[in-house]
Amino acid sequence: MTPVRRTPGRRPGGPDTRGEIVQAARESFADKGFEATSMRAVARQAGVDAALVHHYFDSKDELFIEALALPVDPRMIAARIVDGPRDEIGRRIATAFLGIWESAEGQQRMRALFRSVLSSDEVARMMREGITQMIVVPVSQMLAVPDARLRVGLVATQLVGAAIVRYLVGLEPIASVDVETLIDRLAPVLQQHLTG
Amino acid sequence: MTPVRRTPGRRPGGPDTRGEIVQAARESFADKGFEATSMRAVARQAGVDAALVHHYFDSKDELFIEALALPVDPRMIAARIVDGPRDEIGRRIATAFLGIWESAEGQQRMRALFRSVLSSDEVARMMREGITQMIVVPVSQMLAVPDARLRVGLVATQLVGAAIVRYLVGLEPIASVDVETLIDRLAPVLQQHLTG
Repeated sequence: MTPVRRTPGRRPGGPDTRGEIVQAARESFADKGFEATSMRAVARQAGVDAALVHHYFDSKDELFIEALALPVDPRMIAARIVDGPRDEIGRRIATAFLGIWESAEGQQRMRALFRSVLSSDEVARMMREGITQMIVVPVSQMLAVPDARLRVGLVATQLVGAAIVRYLVGLEPIASVDVETLIDRLAPVLQQHLTG
Repeated sequence: MTPVRRTPGRRPGGPDTRGEIVQAARESFADKGFEATSMRAVARQAGVDAALVHHYFDSKDELFIEALALPVDPRMIAARIVDGPRDEIGRRIATAFLGIWESAEGQQRMRALFRSVLSSDEVARMMREGITQMIVVPVSQMLAVPDARLRVGLVATQLVGAAIVRYLVGLEPIASVDVETLIDRLAPVLQQHLTG
């Protein structure tokens, strides 16, 4: 394998090439962090031409989403959060976030993600940096309120806690209350965190 | 060891007796749950006289606190929550909860507790039941509002999330904001969950 992998300009089609790029990206995100990782460095680490990385992935964000097996694109979540009436932002966030968890596949992937973030400092660091760059920074900029990053962080605390208590720990009645009720209760609190 | 352990009426003083009772309690909480565990059953499982369990522990609650190595007595937290002006309950909760985490020893024990709850379904079940009996039920009764248990559960989501984001994941700026600011931000939201 090694001579093949190291050939610059290798064309797409190798059965593992994409997987090797993702693996190299995962290592780079873990070792150097999100900001210091570049498409070029990932290509070097995978032993492939940078063009090949671009062939499979449009951006570093996409590599990150794939490397962490995120169930959704955080940029889509960020866009959905800021798009719409400002006084309904809390409800949009609650609906989007719980919507992921309420689907069987989403829940399975979110569970796996949460467990690995909570059991591995390395994964936690990756997530922290990736979420900061892809959600916290853009949403904070678009919010244009004082303490925007603190506010977005507070939203994260409420969402993370709701997910853990409902889906991972199963504390009643949070675990079995219908999702609409939960959204109704979380929406004003998220709104308060963001614009209160 | 076995013949000694099985002798009914054994007196206190055996070097491991207390630890054996705690171990038996932990197994019983895990196997049968909090409600179905009794002091008598723990004594039986530890192979000691029930009086000996009562010699070391005043109640099942205390056995639970010890079995899970809780950093604080949840009943004390529950009492502190309900004692005082109703419109400051959110602030009292935030102050009490973050106070535990802000001490070095408290943080170490809470970290260990959170990690084991999140990585073991058995520990999660124990915690869920113990916290329900020792905090959710009494606080709900004292609140005397509709949906009291749902409200207490929502408070749990916000607290759990704040702790995880600040102390376990370390997402900025939540991780390094001063604790007073965090209390100021969480207090109205907790109040909203409980009485809003």
